[in-house]
Amino acid sequence: MKITDATIQEVDKALVDSNNAFIKYAQSGLRVRASLMRAIAVELETLGDDVIQLAMKETNLTEPRLKSERARTMFQLNSYADACERGEWMELSINTADAQRVPPKPDIRKTKFPLGPVVVFGSSNFPFAYSTAGGDTASALAAGCTVVVKAHPAHPQTSNMVANAIKNALQKLGMDEHIFIHLHGASNQVGEALVKHPLTKAVGFTGSFQGGMALFNWANQRQEPIPVFAEMGSVNPVYFFPEKLKEGFEAFAQQYAESITLGVGQFCTNPGIIVGIEGKELAEFTRLLGEKISSIAVGKMLHSGIAKAYKEKSQNAIDQQNVKLVNAANDVQDTVSGKPMVAEVEAKHFLSNPTLSEEVFGPFSLVVSCKDISEMQSVAASLKGQLTSTLIATENELKNNKALIELIASKCGRLILNGVPTGVEVCLAMQHGGPFPATTDPRFSSVGADAIKRFARPISYQNFSDSLLPDELKNNNPLKIWRTVNDQLTRDAL
Amino acid sequence: MKITDATIQEVDKALVDSNNAFIKYAQSGLRVRASLMRAIAVELETLGDDVIQLAMKETNLTEPRLKSERARTMFQLNSYADACERGEWMELSINTADAQRVPPKPDIRKTKFPLGPVVVFGSSNFPFAYSTAGGDTASALAAGCTVVVKAHPAHPQTSNMVANAIKNALQKLGMDEHIFIHLHGASNQVGEALVKHPLTKAVGFTGSFQGGMALFNWANQRQEPIPVFAEMGSVNPVYFFPEKLKEGFEAFAQQYAESITLGVGQFCTNPGIIVGIEGKELAEFTRLLGEKISSIAVGKMLHSGIAKAYKEKSQNAIDQQNVKLVNAANDVQDTVSGKPMVAEVEAKHFLSNPTLSEEVFGPFSLVVSCKDISEMQSVAASLKGQLTSTLIATENELKNNKALIELIASKCGRLILNGVPTGVEVCLAMQHGGPFPATTDPRFSSVGADAIKRFARPISYQNFSDSLLPDELKNNNPLKIWRTVNDQLTRDAL
Repeated sequence: MKITDATIQEVDKALVDSNNAFIKYAQSGLRVRASLMRAIAVELETLGDDVIQLAMKETNLTEPRLKSERARTMFQLNSYADACERGEWMELSINTADAQRVPPKPDIRKTKFPLGPVVVFGSSNFPFAYSTAGGDTASALAAGCTVVVKAHPAHPQTSNMVANAIKNALQKLGMDEHIFIHLHGASNQVGEALVKHPLTKAVGFTGSFQGGMALFNWANQRQEPIPVFAEMGSVNPVYFFPEKLKEGFEAFAQQYAESITLGVGQFCTNPGIIVGIEGKELAEFTRLLGEKISSIAVGKMLHSGIAKAYKEKSQNAIDQQNVKLVNAANDVQDTVSGKPMVAEVEAKHFLSNPTLSEEVFGPFSLVVSCKDISEMQSVAASLKGQLTSTLIATENELKNNKALIELIASKCGRLILNGVPTGVEVCLAMQHGGPFPATTDPRFSSVGADAIKRFARPISYQNFSDSLLPDELKNNNPLKIWRTVNDQLTRDAL
Repeated sequence: MKITDATIQEVDKALVDSNNAFIKYAQSGLRVRASLMRAIAVELETLGDDVIQLAMKETNLTEPRLKSERARTMFQLNSYADACERGEWMELSINTADAQRVPPKPDIRKTKFPLGPVVVFGSSNFPFAYSTAGGDTASALAAGCTVVVKAHPAHPQTSNMVANAIKNALQKLGMDEHIFIHLHGASNQVGEALVKHPLTKAVGFTGSFQGGMALFNWANQRQEPIPVFAEMGSVNPVYFFPEKLKEGFEAFAQQYAESITLGVGQFCTNPGIIVGIEGKELAEFTRLLGEKISSIAVGKMLHSGIAKAYKEKSQNAIDQQNVKLVNAANDVQDTVSGKPMVAEVEAKHFLSNPTLSEEVFGPFSLVVSCKDISEMQSVAASLKGQLTSTLIATENELKNNKALIELIASKCGRLILNGVPTGVEVCLAMQHGGPFPATTDPRFSSVGADAIKRFARPISYQNFSDSLLPDELKNNNPLKIWRTVNDQLTRDAL
């Protein structure tokens, strides 16, 4: 199928259709939304191997990776559907009337209302889980929003196939086909028109800092500004504390060689900076990490554009004064491979060169050696907002370095102890977000069912009689959702 | 005491001090924060009549109004302190580990972390409840943020006195004086410097559209954009349905004359537009509303600037083609009074003149008469986002006009049935917010304990041992807070 950019007219029609569908879909019950999400998961599975093969061609990702990503995408749809029906994301609250009070206290009940049509930008590195039927789409549908997806131009055919699966689900359920609309747009104009369209009410994005900021700025230049949740990646610093390293570093070297090169380093939680205290153990760990990295088979990146950017950025990092290449995998003479590399630099040089704290998207990591904990604190203080930070430390080290740990926590969305940042568990307790520039709003997450909250807003009903209230606010609580009634959480009827 | 604008150096020092205090205050437990808030409430009461007399002079508000506003402010501090301790605002969740799963499932626990120093802009119309120790300050302190308040230049001495009460509370508790910092600034430069200071992490504001948008734009122009919650008012449309009006309109005319003139019309929920269906009842209601308005004693507005703007805007509305003055109170020859007025216009003219849907801040309301329900739908569709919308309707009318009711609901934060929009109950179920331009982010509220959520962000801890976790996430749940453990809400220990 030939892929062509949507015209401005097509963008306009998409939002008008999406908004018309929204008016009805916004009123749909939680069960209807959950059924749709589960039906999409079924249709994704029905696509079988064909979509995996197609995605392999378009993205260079491996078959096992794509199969597991598809499974994750289905799990997202199903688990967010469960959360949608449980309804806790609506944060229902009821304060009952008191006619005796002076002045009389009204009856007030609060639920959530969907924002409106949501524009989702498919990501390049997650052709399933953060693209057409990915986490943003699932969250928006759960919230009661309709969705207009702009497919990522790096895997348009895969996106088409997934879009058709969604269309099939809608058709089988007899639902409005315009609840989900799929467009292409390799040019910036399509993205700009989508974000600036007056009927667009929110935006979801996973990708580069430049891309995310373009959307964010467009959204704020609108006559009516709208929320943008842009997840823009980070360097995900890892702090190795000396005592822990003394206990043994072989296993960590192995774990980190795998984490740095997982998916050819194309994860937003890829550990790009490793901070340690100089000494025999850090030197040995670094050498061993380099050795393991050098023996890893060089993988193909998503497309030649990303591979080119990786080559340039990693080379640029290594070319900085006082940066030393520790080790690298063998060169591969093509335009798409991403060669794993580990470099090192002393903290004093790192601190004086902001280039070194910029993300190098790909299988690259920079070991920063500090003279002491105080210098490690300076490195932590110099870093911007992060999706994750990782501590490799003993219990004692954590207890003896509280100020440093608090500083590190204050800059990230997720803090990992003695593990690796890659591997983002899809569960309610997951925070996949973080202070700017990791995301454009640290108060939200794009992974886990709380991601639904990005796309709905509270609305209060004052003095409505029971029959006129939405089901979730009725006296007898027919949906059996947890509600805060006069400041007490309960599932009981009033 | 002489009031002088803070210099840029003083703004810088304020944020540096605030941030230093934040590092420790962010780690304070919920009980410490709640104690501080309750102590501030006590100190506010201790100010006694002096602060009321001072505020009367500075704001022209009446003694009963100011006494009740101070009581409301204390109630906010105390009830948000209770909510802070109950901890449900933290939306705690825990997903426990599963070592058997392939790959092993980590232990992940999510809590909230305060954003950092919050800059609060005191409002002119709420010298207590939305100023120095008002709702934004209370929410920020509950979230664990430090606060820098810029006093509203219309009541600087009242603000000073309240600020001293907060300082006393901090001192008595032996807490860092820089948890709360108070500045003055009549010029825009102070506001700009506060919003653009790199250590500022969020902004709270209640006031005009122009003021709110200036802050919002500054915040988004920063190298690190920050969240701004600006509540910028609205016209709070009231929809009178014909059957309900036929049942009797005298009581409504009385209620609305009082609501329109309450506090000399200086509430953000003041009903500025009344939409009805033309006919005998609407005409009679309008005449009666005008009559009641005309006999209301003319009150003094907050200051001559607001009175001047009211005079100009109300006159400008009345001067529009096809707008007719229904009735008004007697003229008062001074520069500060706000004369109650009711005007009327046919919907077809209202729809063709955007000036008429703009807020006139003061005791002014415009009755828009529609030919039929379909024209009422057009009026509803033409309006922007609102803090509130009100329906005066029978149960039958609500059931028979579902599409219209849904349209009205889709544009407001709170929907009131057969009442008045003024009187914002301070309770969890209150939504005081709404789609743009009512606020800059419809997903948050500035009234009710959920207002705390504006100033905190989620953070996940992965694979931390119990002793290293924050108290609210420990296995035995020592704080007895509701948590979602493996998708089940519970207060039980793990």
